[in-house]
Amino acid sequence: MQKFDAFPDFAEVTPTGRISAALHGWRAKCLQRLVRLDLPVPRTVALPATAVRAIAAGHVVDCATLLAIFGDAPLVSVRPSPANPDWGGPATILNVGLNAARHAALAKLHGQPAADALYLRFVQSYATHVARLDPDMFDSREASPESIRDALRKYEHEMEEPFPEDPARQLSEVLRSMARAWEGTSARLLRQAKGAPADAALGLVVQSMAQGIAGGISGSGVIQFVDPVSGHPQITGRYLGQSQGRDALKRTEALYLTRDLRGPSLEDIAPQIFADLVAYGSACRARLREEMQIEFTIEDGRLSVLDAVRVQRSSRAGLRIAVALADDHVITRDEAVMRVEPRALSELLHHQVDPRGPRDVFARGIAASPGAAAGALVFSSAAAQSFASRGEPCILVRRETAPEDIRGMHSAVGVLTERGGVTSHAAVIARGLGVPCVVGASGLRLDSKDKKLTAADGRIFREGDRITLDGTAGEALAGEAAMLPPALDENFRKLLHWADQARDIGIRANADTPADAELARRFEAEGIGLCRTEHMFFDEDRLVVMREMIFADTPQDRAAALDRLLPMQRADFVQLFEIMRGKPVCIRLFDPPLHEFLPQSREGLRDLAEALDKPLSDVTRRAEALAEFNPMLGMRGVRLGVVLPEIYNMQAQAIFEATVEVGRRGDPVVPEIMIPLVSARREVELVKTRIDAVAATVRNHSGQAFDYRLGVMVETPRAALRAGEIAQHSAFLSFGTNDLTQMTYGLSRDDAGRFMNTYVQQGVFPEDPFHTLDVDGVGELLLIGADRGRRTRADLVVSICGEHGGNPESIAFCRKAGFDYVSCSPFRVPLARLAAAHLAITDRRESGVT
Amino acid sequence: MQKFDAFPDFAEVTPTGRISAALHGWRAKCLQRLVRLDLPVPRTVALPATAVRAIAAGHVVDCATLLAIFGDAPLVSVRPSPANPDWGGPATILNVGLNAARHAALAKLHGQPAADALYLRFVQSYATHVARLDPDMFDSREASPESIRDALRKYEHEMEEPFPEDPARQLSEVLRSMARAWEGTSARLLRQAKGAPADAALGLVVQSMAQGIAGGISGSGVIQFVDPVSGHPQITGRYLGQSQGRDALKRTEALYLTRDLRGPSLEDIAPQIFADLVAYGSACRARLREEMQIEFTIEDGRLSVLDAVRVQRSSRAGLRIAVALADDHVITRDEAVMRVEPRALSELLHHQVDPRGPRDVFARGIAASPGAAAGALVFSSAAAQSFASRGEPCILVRRETAPEDIRGMHSAVGVLTERGGVTSHAAVIARGLGVPCVVGASGLRLDSKDKKLTAADGRIFREGDRITLDGTAGEALAGEAAMLPPALDENFRKLLHWADQARDIGIRANADTPADAELARRFEAEGIGLCRTEHMFFDEDRLVVMREMIFADTPQDRAAALDRLLPMQRADFVQLFEIMRGKPVCIRLFDPPLHEFLPQSREGLRDLAEALDKPLSDVTRRAEALAEFNPMLGMRGVRLGVVLPEIYNMQAQAIFEATVEVGRRGDPVVPEIMIPLVSARREVELVKTRIDAVAATVRNHSGQAFDYRLGVMVETPRAALRAGEIAQHSAFLSFGTNDLTQMTYGLSRDDAGRFMNTYVQQGVFPEDPFHTLDVDGVGELLLIGADRGRRTRADLVVSICGEHGGNPESIAFCRKAGFDYVSCSPFRVPLARLAAAHLAITDRRESGVT
Repeated sequence: MQKFDAFPDFAEVTPTGRISAALHGWRAKCLQRLVRLDLPVPRTVALPATAVRAIAAGHVVDCATLLAIFGDAPLVSVRPSPANPDWGGPATILNVGLNAARHAALAKLHGQPAADALYLRFVQSYATHVARLDPDMFDSREASPESIRDALRKYEHEMEEPFPEDPARQLSEVLRSMARAWEGTSARLLRQAKGAPADAALGLVVQSMAQGIAGGISGSGVIQFVDPVSGHPQITGRYLGQSQGRDALKRTEALYLTRDLRGPSLEDIAPQIFADLVAYGSACRARLREEMQIEFTIEDGRLSVLDAVRVQRSSRAGLRIAVALADDHVITRDEAVMRVEPRALSELLHHQVDPRGPRDVFARGIAASPGAAAGALVFSSAAAQSFASRGEPCILVRRETAPEDIRGMHSAVGVLTERGGVTSHAAVIARGLGVPCVVGASGLRLDSKDKKLTAADGRIFREGDRITLDGTAGEALAGEAAMLPPALDENFRKLLHWADQARDIGIRANADTPADAELARRFEAEGIGLCRTEHMFFDEDRLVVMREMIFADTPQDRAAALDRLLPMQRADFVQLFEIMRGKPVCIRLFDPPLHEFLPQSREGLRDLAEALDKPLSDVTRRAEALAEFNPMLGMRGVRLGVVLPEIYNMQAQAIFEATVEVGRRGDPVVPEIMIPLVSARREVELVKTRIDAVAATVRNHSGQAFDYRLGVMVETPRAALRAGEIAQHSAFLSFGTNDLTQMTYGLSRDDAGRFMNTYVQQGVFPEDPFHTLDVDGVGELLLIGADRGRRTRADLVVSICGEHGGNPESIAFCRKAGFDYVSCSPFRVPLARLAAAHLAITDRRESGVT
Repeated sequence: MQKFDAFPDFAEVTPTGRISAALHGWRAKCLQRLVRLDLPVPRTVALPATAVRAIAAGHVVDCATLLAIFGDAPLVSVRPSPANPDWGGPATILNVGLNAARHAALAKLHGQPAADALYLRFVQSYATHVARLDPDMFDSREASPESIRDALRKYEHEMEEPFPEDPARQLSEVLRSMARAWEGTSARLLRQAKGAPADAALGLVVQSMAQGIAGGISGSGVIQFVDPVSGHPQITGRYLGQSQGRDALKRTEALYLTRDLRGPSLEDIAPQIFADLVAYGSACRARLREEMQIEFTIEDGRLSVLDAVRVQRSSRAGLRIAVALADDHVITRDEAVMRVEPRALSELLHHQVDPRGPRDVFARGIAASPGAAAGALVFSSAAAQSFASRGEPCILVRRETAPEDIRGMHSAVGVLTERGGVTSHAAVIARGLGVPCVVGASGLRLDSKDKKLTAADGRIFREGDRITLDGTAGEALAGEAAMLPPALDENFRKLLHWADQARDIGIRANADTPADAELARRFEAEGIGLCRTEHMFFDEDRLVVMREMIFADTPQDRAAALDRLLPMQRADFVQLFEIMRGKPVCIRLFDPPLHEFLPQSREGLRDLAEALDKPLSDVTRRAEALAEFNPMLGMRGVRLGVVLPEIYNMQAQAIFEATVEVGRRGDPVVPEIMIPLVSARREVELVKTRIDAVAATVRNHSGQAFDYRLGVMVETPRAALRAGEIAQHSAFLSFGTNDLTQMTYGLSRDDAGRFMNTYVQQGVFPEDPFHTLDVDGVGELLLIGADRGRRTRADLVVSICGEHGGNPESIAFCRKAGFDYVSCSPFRVPLARLAAAHLAITDRRESGVT
């Protein structure tokens, strides 16, 4: 490292120089790494952020001394070097030091056209970026002595002084203009939008020019060694003779690098240089432990490496690269796990429309977010939320989306808009959510008021109609198309197994149906954390029996209806236990209010009255009697279980008989039974007594012993507060954070849509608490509940289930609180496995254990 | 005290004997007190509970030795003496010791008829109570040698042994039968229903007979010195010559005691004895510090006092007696306060159905709000208002009430509903209004359309029919029953002032209207703790403007509607501040969801559309859009305040302008403004900023300075948990325990009725938590909230408001937690003042401070 008297903070980039990413920026640091690898990096000096800030504040630099380091009459480039490459920075300036004398010398060295091109380019770039003159005045593309003179004249006229001839003066002005540009308001806002802190600083890098516009084989290009979409090894890049900087990427006449049928390549023209580049790439990968894109220049047959940046990549490629690096022992498996962002996984999990199936396309637009989904058509965010709250997948169609639609988009499985392009609000948000999206489907006529969508071919679709959205193809299909499951390849599985080895909190899936359970198994969940049994009663044939049960006049009639439901329930559980064999299955007893099973419409009631052979007035009166002011806070969950014990008894019998049946065919099943909506110890005691009795009966009848575990779903604040006594009768507590959030805030998820956006925008709530666990309020109840429960019973199994379960933030919270597992929807299981591994590895790293 | 060898636990009742109420029972203890007062009590021996228990277990007593204490050939009575007189006990047996020989001796002494009467009576009573023979066999009323012989023969026939002649044997059997009767199941259940513990024990008292059936002036009677209904000093009682025990109370030929126009009195017959009785009464009052009823017997002109019991009394008399005793310095004021049960006060605040009148009950339900009222039956709020406007009292009957019935409930003198429980809308509002209310009168069939009410017995009532509602008993009576007026006399006020001197927690009233405030003032509440402003918008004229506000298309239109509401609101507050002058008034900002202000029926919507001059479809659609799945957890409270700031701004302006106006006419007003349904600190911050701005504007415009205090109603569990940060912007926290209970349990008060009875009966909840504060769950949130709030701000004022506020249990809880005050409905203020005094006095007594 060489210090400069004139400005002692300058540091030459040498293998041993004290260059730090924080002070000199990522580019300076990266260049030092390349220098250490003995790559042919032109001489480079790094200006630290402190110096750049001083320059912006008016400090004048002795650039003559600085330039002296680059030898006699040098040309240099100046590039931005912020701490993080994502934060942007002012444009690179090339060829600083060029003036009339140097122009003449270059003409002698490389010929007049090359010298003219370089000089004109420098004057243009200095005038527009440093002197900030109107670019239109300097747009001449043909380099010639005349165009150069014209540009110099214009400069002098506008600036009322001649173009600076002194290289030191030029460099000083370039540094000052770049330092000041960084401080500008729009630059600040832009980088803050990318996550830069308010005090983000800029370093600068001054580098000796390697001249791609010169004699012999001269030119510039970029090269990388993996495919940015698939992540597979493949040399890609562009090279352009007689070019500078990143020209090769912009111009169609650029060459491919590898030998290729399409025309001449760098490999053809300069096989040794090509071989060197490949070797450099290899060195970078091995020593920088990353797939890098290398920017290079060839000056008269001599190769220079100007810069190297991490290869841009898709989520899929990122995963492939990380796994390959670990397989090649370049990085550890933990490191590979850490390199893949959990949220990036969701992209890999998408369904696709089966290409072999029929496609009834009714609208075409722009493929804005990949994947496919089928659901009921809805015309408003409110409707989307309402469908979602009932567990019905839906596809939101809007003219275009606005921020107030975000909650609706969260609730929908797909988004279709009539307007907008690939960067429209709908497209950006849908990609962020991993939700399939088609935008700009302009043939449609949308009538939101009447909830009517008219396709170009005249077909009319209404709310609730089933459609399929193919976000990969950019098409909307009528009906529910056949789907292909997402491609979960070897790399995906390998990385997640490594994650499993690292993590220290369990991950289960919420699965209500055999299909869900298959998914849970496929995503290698460690069991089912929440199986909601009420969904099992919405099948057409079961609904009829269910309604008979509800309208039963006597306990005998009710028991008779339940007797008919019993074999169906038993079959459900047999299937679940078979699919999940060897893994725990936690079954939540019946939860929703009974009125959810009744028809809403007058016609539905009339049909029901006929089916039940009762007078319509009777049916209507009893349906009215079952209606509730606040169903969320009504006669549901364990309250039903206490007041109408026949329902839980039937469910317990079905569970135990399935346990016996499946257990006979293999390893014993140990079902977990969970009681919903508990608020008092005695509720648990009562239900437990009855279920124990059912278990004894089934053991007697079957002559087969089995175990089961009974636990409580903690959804009311009171259950959390009283967890100490509730745990007396519970083997486990699982926090249902959906309902717990509703009750802790006194806020119905179904009704919050109307003001949640305002609330989040005004910062009343930092986040929507139904999306991101409210650590301060709900979180405290989780901690209280877990703590009190475990004081009563040290081996109490504690977990959360519900929407929050799969969020990295919630997993972090639960892990810190010592929870045994989190349970989330099957599609979030991979994300959760990876996020949990990140947390464990980060912890181990921070505590020095590796 | 004299001990008996035969049974060492016997204790003669002497002034210094070791007699304890716990061991020997209240009667033994009371008799000892009378002995100490030198009253002529016949010789008495007390058997402790231990002895009685041993007798019941089969221990045989040496009754010869016991009888010896009463002299030669004595006659004795045996009476029960449990620890508490309310616990009942076996029937007294008189004349034990009578046999053929003694019969003959008595005939010589007092004449044959007297001797026959006594003997027959003893044989009858022994046969039925001791030998437990059929009373019908021994019902002969005419005493004669023949009827005696007949009774003895029947006894011998049934028992297969002669009637016992040996007095010791008789006494032994009497003791055994009484000891065993106490252990019987029905006796145990009866006394436990009166609050006796499971191990309640019985003492017995054996007393020498003073013989009221004898020669000369002989007879028996009772005397007391206050009227049992009014509590006023007045000698009442009955005397019957030639009688025993309490005969005088049963027989119409008994004499009054004082000189009376109706006929001869004891005072006429035996003026000295009467004077002695009056002196004894005086001594009892002064020394036993209680109004006693004295049971006496005169045997041949010699007065004996057999017993004395606390005078049975109405609530009203109890209060009058306590105050009089304190005024006479017989007891302290604190003692007077302690002698009146808080719950007894509520009887005094309401009309009551005169218990002496006939009761034609046609419906029974839950006694939801005490008091009685008679009026015309009406089936709708409109009819109630129309009756009220004609000055005709009416009783509103509804299936159940909704917010839109409030005006009808205001107009009615009583409310009867077919559905609902003790915490239903009707019950809560009626208690708040102090209107008698019966809910859940489930035998009724109500046909509102045809204005017809069919009772369970088939009787039909129609609009205008006169009925009486007994909210204390939970009954509806046909016709107008006779009534007793409420009693808020001098004694009532005096006692409560003494209570105020003793208590150490504040009592405020919940009052929404000037009428409520007048009541609060009348019941001497220390201020208004909760003024719900939404009730102010249900008046016909305001409702119209309110609906215009809700349907406003632009913020300007909304502001215009609110501008019209402003002067009405201001006038409300001016009235309240005037009435409550000098006392704090805590105003809760607008709380309910807007849809509560819309008509429910299609006709109502049609009228509204016409009034607003909008298409019906528009009005219907917007009404639908405002509907909520769970209104309790929806867009209400501070959520409205944040999203539609105009409403709170208008209210704040009205409050401040009223503050200025009333302040100009007298002492400055310092209004308290309370924000409902808070769940996050930032909500408070936002509203506070806006209200501060409104205050500044009003100060500017009026040129008058004023102060106000802003606080938070803690109704969500989260607000309690986050009270620490919420208190940063709050001068006070008031816990709204109604909503807090709903949210802590996840239980809607409106929907809980369907299973609350089952829950309480099965002991799932020990009490209805909407009735009795759930100390374990909701209570913990109160403690957490108060503690965290006060850590932030030591001078934070903490209170509760809502239904629980007036319950003695809640007051005890809040007082222990150091709350500043409780606020309850005006009608509960007296009860709360008294209950709070009880707590403070009890505490001081227990800690030895008096």
